[in-house]
Amino acid sequence: MPPVSADDRLRIHYRVRFSEGEPAADRARDIAYEQTVELPAACVNRELTDHFVGRVESVERGSLDWAQVTISYASERLVDDGAQLLNLLFGNISLKRGIQIRSIEWPVSMLQQFGGPRYGADGLQTLAGNDGSKPLLCAALKPVGLNVEQLGELCYQFAAGGANLIKDDHGITNQPSAPFRERLQSCQAAVERAQQERGQPCLYFPNVSGPSATLHERLELARDTGCKGVMISPMLTGIDSLQQIRAFDDLALLAHPALSGMMFGDDHGLLPELVLGDLFRMLGADGVIYPNVGGRFPFDARQCARINDQLREPFGELLASAPAPGGGIDVKLIAHWVAQYGAQTILLIGGSLYAQADLTLATSELMKAIDKASS
Amino acid sequence: MPPVSADDRLRIHYRVRFSEGEPAADRARDIAYEQTVELPAACVNRELTDHFVGRVESVERGSLDWAQVTISYASERLVDDGAQLLNLLFGNISLKRGIQIRSIEWPVSMLQQFGGPRYGADGLQTLAGNDGSKPLLCAALKPVGLNVEQLGELCYQFAAGGANLIKDDHGITNQPSAPFRERLQSCQAAVERAQQERGQPCLYFPNVSGPSATLHERLELARDTGCKGVMISPMLTGIDSLQQIRAFDDLALLAHPALSGMMFGDDHGLLPELVLGDLFRMLGADGVIYPNVGGRFPFDARQCARINDQLREPFGELLASAPAPGGGIDVKLIAHWVAQYGAQTILLIGGSLYAQADLTLATSELMKAIDKASS
Repeated sequence: MPPVSADDRLRIHYRVRFSEGEPAADRARDIAYEQTVELPAACVNRELTDHFVGRVESVERGSLDWAQVTISYASERLVDDGAQLLNLLFGNISLKRGIQIRSIEWPVSMLQQFGGPRYGADGLQTLAGNDGSKPLLCAALKPVGLNVEQLGELCYQFAAGGANLIKDDHGITNQPSAPFRERLQSCQAAVERAQQERGQPCLYFPNVSGPSATLHERLELARDTGCKGVMISPMLTGIDSLQQIRAFDDLALLAHPALSGMMFGDDHGLLPELVLGDLFRMLGADGVIYPNVGGRFPFDARQCARINDQLREPFGELLASAPAPGGGIDVKLIAHWVAQYGAQTILLIGGSLYAQADLTLATSELMKAIDKASS
Repeated sequence: MPPVSADDRLRIHYRVRFSEGEPAADRARDIAYEQTVELPAACVNRELTDHFVGRVESVERGSLDWAQVTISYASERLVDDGAQLLNLLFGNISLKRGIQIRSIEWPVSMLQQFGGPRYGADGLQTLAGNDGSKPLLCAALKPVGLNVEQLGELCYQFAAGGANLIKDDHGITNQPSAPFRERLQSCQAAVERAQQERGQPCLYFPNVSGPSATLHERLELARDTGCKGVMISPMLTGIDSLQQIRAFDDLALLAHPALSGMMFGDDHGLLPELVLGDLFRMLGADGVIYPNVGGRFPFDARQCARINDQLREPFGELLASAPAPGGGIDVKLIAHWVAQYGAQTILLIGGSLYAQADLTLATSELMKAIDKASS
């Protein structure tokens, strides 16, 4: 569960490596100054120290050369947007070594400021015409290089098989092979055709990652074409792009983890569940894609469970986001994943679908397996 | 020197860890597919494989479990903006482990697409009224928490001492203590007052890092208030923000490295000179701040020299950017740094200035030391 701060200070628990020549307490103090005033203590007056400098609350030496350090920050004085939050969390200290954020107690004022998901896991279920009793099936549209007709045809095949949600591959943006506007029209039209034939909703979420100056235009295009949501990779576009989309009309928001792995160093960075869980949820993602255990990435089962928890467990007044594990999921394993992850999940299927000859049939078999496992 | 690709393919040289169970060649092929089509090879037809999948050009096993891998990409088909370039470089593979980009051969078409600095090191010298014979002195305005009058007064003191350039601390954005618009007006007015008194230019570059929706407004405010340039932290705001500023009217652009250290893992990520050198320069930074050797960060002298080289050595038709080393620079060491880094440099001074009682006097002594060392 993402902890909420009792005194409305942003409280960060770090694991910090220290050397013999540099006591752990000095290293802690160094972080508290580096992340705020960026000056030596002697250059900062009492008032600024009290109100702006991070407050070292505890330093506990652990085994060998590691210490547990807790520092709290008056975040309402320091953070006015997502970029600045990221800066306070890890901006300058990213350039140091041996500092890992292990957990964060979030101020209620910050939860209110950023607001969290607008649809959340429940809202996505409703948009997809589900009643919350089973996971959503999401197909990934790929590969880059296909033209808009080919991508539209793939969309149709997935939608005809009953997929709840189809999202662009995050590497498909506005390439000459399938420009954003034309792709959007082709794919949304295909999904609507299948929708009419089946009498059941199917959502298409285009990838809106791109230059920040185009974001608003792409959101308008998506909305005006009939899409109910979009996908973005916030570490590529700037984390504040989540807030921009959240503030835009009524589009639901799926976040992709591209580039976020930079932050998951073994002994330097933030734990994955803090970025893909706490942070993406707080900034407004209704669903968060992450690399599932058993897929192509080295996340293990406990890591995945922690991300799910941070996305779904109570977090102030925020809605729950839907975890969207991708990788390692196929028709034989559906029952396992449904049991493991529960109904408020988006099962993201890519490669294992594309390995089938008949995509509509393969999708419909996945849907049947989900129904069976959820009943 | 940043290498330019002979055949206009983006050619990336990786150092890749492989395990006994997974031959190095498989790992290389995995990267080539992961970063492009995100599908198993069997699911990708010949035409897409030829035109879109990364091409593994060489795999050389090094010592133990490391291999040198070279993969080239048809970047003009894959990359249409900065975010997507970052994705191609390290998007999904960030979530893996043991992959480090050691050098990149850049396509000429990409250099032309992004365009590089508009002012460059020479242009910054001209804006500051220098003739290129000595480094610029840049003072950092801090700490966060001061109000607009106090920040303006600091600006005046630095400018009266002859500083060429004053930049906001990157942690000062739009906090209630000093809102962007009011700070801008106070600081620019202070700089102009000193400028008139001394008859010598002094530049104030406000930090425009913030929500992407405010970027354009902040740039207009900066321009309309009389600023000749701005600073941004592209890893916080999204790397494409460099291109947005580059495309905006006539503002010069200083890039700050906050959060970039995430990418500099010992065995996973990109080498610092590729991000702070090649990438920031190509995307339009006229000057790039980085943590100098001897300061608070673990960059050594060779690392700093490599960043300087990537910023200043020939790079297609691109202008040179000015390295802006910060940290470890004070009046006693000025002669050393001028000799070490040369005239086309911005010497960024923060903490050592603030430790002085009289900021104007301290600034003027730094300027004298720069003059003496450069004559």
